[in-house]
Amino acid sequence: MRATVMYGAGDVRVEDVPDPVLQEPTDALVRIVRSCVCGSDLHPYRSMPASVEGTPMGHEFLGVVEETGSDVSGFRAGDLVVAPFAFADNTCAFCCEGLHTSCPHGGFFSAAQAEALRVPQAQGSLVKLPVAEDSALLPSLLTLADVFGTGHHAAVTAGVNQRTTVTVVGDGAVGLLAVLSAKRLGAERIVLMGRHKDRTDLGRDFGATDVVAERGQEGIERVRELTSGDGAHTVLEAVGHLDAYEAALGVVRPGGVISRVGVPQYDQGPIGFTSLFGGNLTLTGGPAPVRAYIEELLPDVLEGRVEPGRVFDRTVGLEQTPDGYRAMDQREALKVLVRP
Amino acid sequence: MRATVMYGAGDVRVEDVPDPVLQEPTDALVRIVRSCVCGSDLHPYRSMPASVEGTPMGHEFLGVVEETGSDVSGFRAGDLVVAPFAFADNTCAFCCEGLHTSCPHGGFFSAAQAEALRVPQAQGSLVKLPVAEDSALLPSLLTLADVFGTGHHAAVTAGVNQRTTVTVVGDGAVGLLAVLSAKRLGAERIVLMGRHKDRTDLGRDFGATDVVAERGQEGIERVRELTSGDGAHTVLEAVGHLDAYEAALGVVRPGGVISRVGVPQYDQGPIGFTSLFGGNLTLTGGPAPVRAYIEELLPDVLEGRVEPGRVFDRTVGLEQTPDGYRAMDQREALKVLVRP
Repeated sequence: MRATVMYGAGDVRVEDVPDPVLQEPTDALVRIVRSCVCGSDLHPYRSMPASVEGTPMGHEFLGVVEETGSDVSGFRAGDLVVAPFAFADNTCAFCCEGLHTSCPHGGFFSAAQAEALRVPQAQGSLVKLPVAEDSALLPSLLTLADVFGTGHHAAVTAGVNQRTTVTVVGDGAVGLLAVLSAKRLGAERIVLMGRHKDRTDLGRDFGATDVVAERGQEGIERVRELTSGDGAHTVLEAVGHLDAYEAALGVVRPGGVISRVGVPQYDQGPIGFTSLFGGNLTLTGGPAPVRAYIEELLPDVLEGRVEPGRVFDRTVGLEQTPDGYRAMDQREALKVLVRP
Repeated sequence: MRATVMYGAGDVRVEDVPDPVLQEPTDALVRIVRSCVCGSDLHPYRSMPASVEGTPMGHEFLGVVEETGSDVSGFRAGDLVVAPFAFADNTCAFCCEGLHTSCPHGGFFSAAQAEALRVPQAQGSLVKLPVAEDSALLPSLLTLADVFGTGHHAAVTAGVNQRTTVTVVGDGAVGLLAVLSAKRLGAERIVLMGRHKDRTDLGRDFGATDVVAERGQEGIERVRELTSGDGAHTVLEAVGHLDAYEAALGVVRPGGVISRVGVPQYDQGPIGFTSLFGGNLTLTGGPAPVRAYIEELLPDVLEGRVEPGRVFDRTVGLEQTPDGYRAMDQREALKVLVRP
């Protein structure tokens, strides 16, 4: 089959690879119906050292079940399914607490930008979708695999509700869906920090009440002006670079919460008295256990109350996936849908 | 009057200073009945650059009101009072949320290791105590000024309850009262990391179910063995050094919370994917808004259900305060009560 493999920074290829096969009784084989390129795929796209073997890419997909292992029940060939970007057994103590990303039998998908995929822990990971393979809802349903659930995770872990002011740092797909999620949870004041007007316009559609395009100290001061001078109760950091964390520290209110869902591209950061401690700030977030959220978010997507799929502004065929990376890297596209 | 002034690392003197006077209508003057030396006083005691002017010391006290400014009502001369280590107006938005340490009219006491003290924001800060000046409860009541409230803050912000396993890092007064606070909030499994047997024995009396004396990686592994291999749901870090934060990262369970109440002696720390982010850990805590907790904790002290004053294992007169610092620095004493 054809699949997307990254060989180094800027070097993404679509090539022939062996067809996936069932390896464990808990596996399923899925034919990919839609996959996409993630903002987090851009981190290796910009920094991965050259590699001879390469890394299969893609962790978001909708698919049709083709075959299931002997331990998988409740799914059959022909079912349209979505999976979280992190597979999990959905039965262990961590999964039962909603922390599927820490499942001892779990892991992160790779290789979904392809024609087919082996799904480990299929019964715990897959969720059946009650729509046809040509449904207009597919883009929005695909966001349940990662970016919608990740934006929701940021809002949930930050404790967003109708009484909290919210600042979202970053106007990528996750940032925009953090806006949508905050709005969905009742937030009435949502400031979006981003400087790409087409994206922040979509952010306004999703519920942002204010947009701050300025960066650095100027941006911080602008947000503080918009939030009574004290800063925002909750800050959703959807970028992953150190300057985004520093912006979050700058705009958060004493006693407030910073939730990070952008994968940190740094190890050390300021957490001392003057940055995090003195104001009794809380730093939370992490890889979103989106499996825990699918049942909650799915009805809103199916019934059209939210349209998270609007973050997809370009669709390519599988062979054009490398151009999808390029377009996202150069910010020509916000998020690229891949249609094998 | 006589007061304690620090002139540099290891250089604490008791000397004549001008008597305090009312400066603002919101002030009160208080004669000090008890004060004490705090573990956080040891940080400058070990690192303060030599200074010509010196810094008045002490932020914990019980006192008797001598005089009040014209805006202070509800207190009169002769009232025995306690104050939080951070004064505050107790009426602003932050105080109403229980975050008195961020009160815009607030600040931190200094100069309580003395015969008398000017108390700013007296009406918001002082709490009347219904006991006599010679009550045997004074040591326990004095802990409401800081260390009991700070241990309680660690437990509250970490979300300790009957279902959470708890690890406390540090066997100083705050660590031991974090144990007591966790027990008081219902925790059934409390692991205390500390290597001073007399202190950890008191920790066991306060509710620690296990003591881990090993340090570094060995200590971390021992705690993980004691907590199902996964680590503790909540970790209360009561030291303030980077290695204590690193120990907290080592013993916390995925999805768990680290609450820091030891004043960080570092600015940068690990918060990347492998340390904080990947496991969806939450980092919280800060200077404890103990004013918010006095009304809740006071009845338990008055009725003898808890005895936090047991952390005081030495009493000195005001003139002997420098020796109190020395004894705490050399770990001869856990916490030193000063009786002017």
